[in-house]
Amino acid sequence: MADLDTLYAHIEEHAADYVEKLREVVAIPSVSSDATLRPKVHEMGLWLQAELERLGAETKLHYPGTHVMDGEELELPPIVLGTYGTDESKKTVLVYGHYDVQPASLSDGWTSDPFTLTELDNGRMVGRGSTDDKGPVLGWLWVVEAHQQLGIDLPVNLKFCFEGMEENGSEGLDEMIVAEADGYFANVDAVCISDNYWLGTSKPCITFGLRGVSAFALTVTGPGWDLHSGVYGGTLHEPMTDLIHLMGTLVKPNGEILIPGIMDNVADLTEEEEALYDVLDFDVSELEAAAGAQTLIHDDKKQTIMHRWRYPSLSLHGIEGAFSGQGVKTVIPAKVMGKFSIRTVPNQTPDEIAEKVKAHLEAEFEKLGSKNTMHVEALHGGKCWVGDLNHPNFKAGTRATEKVYGVTPDFTREGGSIPVTLTFQDALGKSVLLLPMGRADDGAHSINEKLDKSNYLNGIKLLATYLHELAAETDL
Amino acid sequence: MADLDTLYAHIEEHAADYVEKLREVVAIPSVSSDATLRPKVHEMGLWLQAELERLGAETKLHYPGTHVMDGEELELPPIVLGTYGTDESKKTVLVYGHYDVQPASLSDGWTSDPFTLTELDNGRMVGRGSTDDKGPVLGWLWVVEAHQQLGIDLPVNLKFCFEGMEENGSEGLDEMIVAEADGYFANVDAVCISDNYWLGTSKPCITFGLRGVSAFALTVTGPGWDLHSGVYGGTLHEPMTDLIHLMGTLVKPNGEILIPGIMDNVADLTEEEEALYDVLDFDVSELEAAAGAQTLIHDDKKQTIMHRWRYPSLSLHGIEGAFSGQGVKTVIPAKVMGKFSIRTVPNQTPDEIAEKVKAHLEAEFEKLGSKNTMHVEALHGGKCWVGDLNHPNFKAGTRATEKVYGVTPDFTREGGSIPVTLTFQDALGKSVLLLPMGRADDGAHSINEKLDKSNYLNGIKLLATYLHELAAETDL
Repeated sequence: MADLDTLYAHIEEHAADYVEKLREVVAIPSVSSDATLRPKVHEMGLWLQAELERLGAETKLHYPGTHVMDGEELELPPIVLGTYGTDESKKTVLVYGHYDVQPASLSDGWTSDPFTLTELDNGRMVGRGSTDDKGPVLGWLWVVEAHQQLGIDLPVNLKFCFEGMEENGSEGLDEMIVAEADGYFANVDAVCISDNYWLGTSKPCITFGLRGVSAFALTVTGPGWDLHSGVYGGTLHEPMTDLIHLMGTLVKPNGEILIPGIMDNVADLTEEEEALYDVLDFDVSELEAAAGAQTLIHDDKKQTIMHRWRYPSLSLHGIEGAFSGQGVKTVIPAKVMGKFSIRTVPNQTPDEIAEKVKAHLEAEFEKLGSKNTMHVEALHGGKCWVGDLNHPNFKAGTRATEKVYGVTPDFTREGGSIPVTLTFQDALGKSVLLLPMGRADDGAHSINEKLDKSNYLNGIKLLATYLHELAAETDL
Repeated sequence: MADLDTLYAHIEEHAADYVEKLREVVAIPSVSSDATLRPKVHEMGLWLQAELERLGAETKLHYPGTHVMDGEELELPPIVLGTYGTDESKKTVLVYGHYDVQPASLSDGWTSDPFTLTELDNGRMVGRGSTDDKGPVLGWLWVVEAHQQLGIDLPVNLKFCFEGMEENGSEGLDEMIVAEADGYFANVDAVCISDNYWLGTSKPCITFGLRGVSAFALTVTGPGWDLHSGVYGGTLHEPMTDLIHLMGTLVKPNGEILIPGIMDNVADLTEEEEALYDVLDFDVSELEAAAGAQTLIHDDKKQTIMHRWRYPSLSLHGIEGAFSGQGVKTVIPAKVMGKFSIRTVPNQTPDEIAEKVKAHLEAEFEKLGSKNTMHVEALHGGKCWVGDLNHPNFKAGTRATEKVYGVTPDFTREGGSIPVTLTFQDALGKSVLLLPMGRADDGAHSINEKLDKSNYLNGIKLLATYLHELAAETDL
């Protein structure tokens, strides 16, 4: 393996350059959900293409087409593809990131202009996109550049895939990945995504699991139109009454899901997995602070984390068609749709969940003895994902983290989903590693988003080391 | 008693005049909820004042002030007061009606211009306000006019109270009634309101009861802000889950209210009252047609009517603060407010209902074991009203109906409320009679509102006869 210390020293020496480049891209307000800023998203994509070209990568822009936003037809920004190295003796690693950002404005409460990278005394670099995801995306570039400047051979071939619509539905991405699985992505051996965060603020982590989500609309229909509760109240079956009773049969206030058989396929907790929770850099007070309330269901950290990551949960989101304004309107709504979703875990599948939800609600509706009609619709089902910690891709990420940070990383999952993870895994049939650069408190979608300078520099070292560790893996 | 047959013949002879006058007022689009038409409401009030003056009444306009609607400060239309006769040997009857109307436009589906009275071959006179409430208001004027033209002494003194904001909250009316109870209304012996409808389409009725309404907002608060269900689902107590469970403890799908003690004060069903239901001109298919669905809870007419009129009902209207849009948003709402109301009946009181609702919800929330916080707010409580059918005012109305129509009227209640009824009763301490002119299918707030010509003419006879019958009552 190459001399990593030389690499690390080089990275530290060039810190100022890396910060300047980050400043340059933070200044491009590539907000994908703002039609007026769409040209800036395109500009940011072309900036990345130019940098990749400068570093000797062969690039290609994939334009997914147009979409309509705020009544305007807009050109979707390009997915920037790049190939760096085609040495058949080397492994090929696909790295994914996104160059678009969340909206931001001073009036939201930022303490400095969100599109001006502002360095604070404590090492924080504040600016929109600093951690999500421009810092990590640039990190990959500096890994290549550092190797070139030091004359160290990059031990793997790289494929880049940087999109500009991640914060706005990733339109066109999945289709492209599936279409190019046997084309542009044919030689990929492993995938690495750096677009998430440490569990806490002091210990790095490797993320190996994401929950899936199955969303439902439960409709109860009765009268032909909304009715006056004074005139009709007491005479007919009210859809809202039925719906509220049905929604009440889904989940208990303590979070227990009441759908028969729903837990049947939840993977058993192994000793190996359980041991992971004991060492986590995590305190429930951080979760309470982030939620703005001390209303946690479980008293201890371990149960809380397990219910966030490895057990399903069911949330009731709201009701369409009922009165939702201020004050009171004495209406009997004619048709109401309850919306809820279940966060799913291995080995639950969307089809299985949809079947059990429907069977349960049909049985419960039968019990109500109502003359209204009920319909359950499965809206969308994103599968859960769990990577294999024993896979060489994860082993490489783990060893890289240990080398850079001197500690064994936390092995974490996340409660939400990063859909592209599963798309890559399913379309390419390769292991996907989530290797974060930033910390839990970076505020990715909030005001005063930041990336700690130490996380930026150590993150660049981490990505570089990961590539070397992966190259050393013989079983990939 | 005067020669009613002469009076009736006179009314029939002047039918064309009465229709022309109705055409004249329907043509004034006095829509109280449309700021651009507010001048027309004022015009309609002045039209009535002029007619009352023409008939020799002493009039007075009470201007309640201004209000803000659609961001505009508007002058409230006048409450037109009139005194006709001050003979101390006669009884004084207060008649109430309103001269404003609901909005209407051809584009809503009217088959003719809503503000042009259109006579159909079947005797229907179609036009906005024809039955609600310009027809009945004009009816009182023609009673006075007919007596003058025939030289028949009007057997009572009249006080008129015609308002122009009934369809828009009756702003300023209650305050005026209370303030003038011992002033302008001091000598009133009985009150008559003609602003409701027969139960069906063929048999007249006398209305002696209205349900009250007690509305509530049930708030559950948890997180400091809305949360992502992927990140937090399973870890904390979700306000929506608590709220749905609490709302589910209020009422069963069959309409049974589950609040302990809620039925304690509901008046017992007497044989006398029960007998009233057996003879009603009512078929449940009419209710089904009006509701647009065959979802009635009770199989028979009597139970259906009783649950509409004389038993309380509880309707769940909706939820504020939850997701209410189309599609799905995987949110954990931080603060949700369930809105519901109870239609109340004798001898329930708003205070008693509020107390029982709160006690019930607090006990149920306790059972949930949730760390969220709950708050119940009683939004407004309108009392129910039941008149005494044995009171001379009702006896007079009953005999008048029998004389004009040749049948004993149905004795009906209504499920909704006409708040001014109770205001008059409470402020003046006098009996209030609801004596309808139109039919159940008049479509008061719908398209193609109509008044049958026969109902108009017989209604004028009815109002006249009622005054004579009331004058003949010795026990008033």
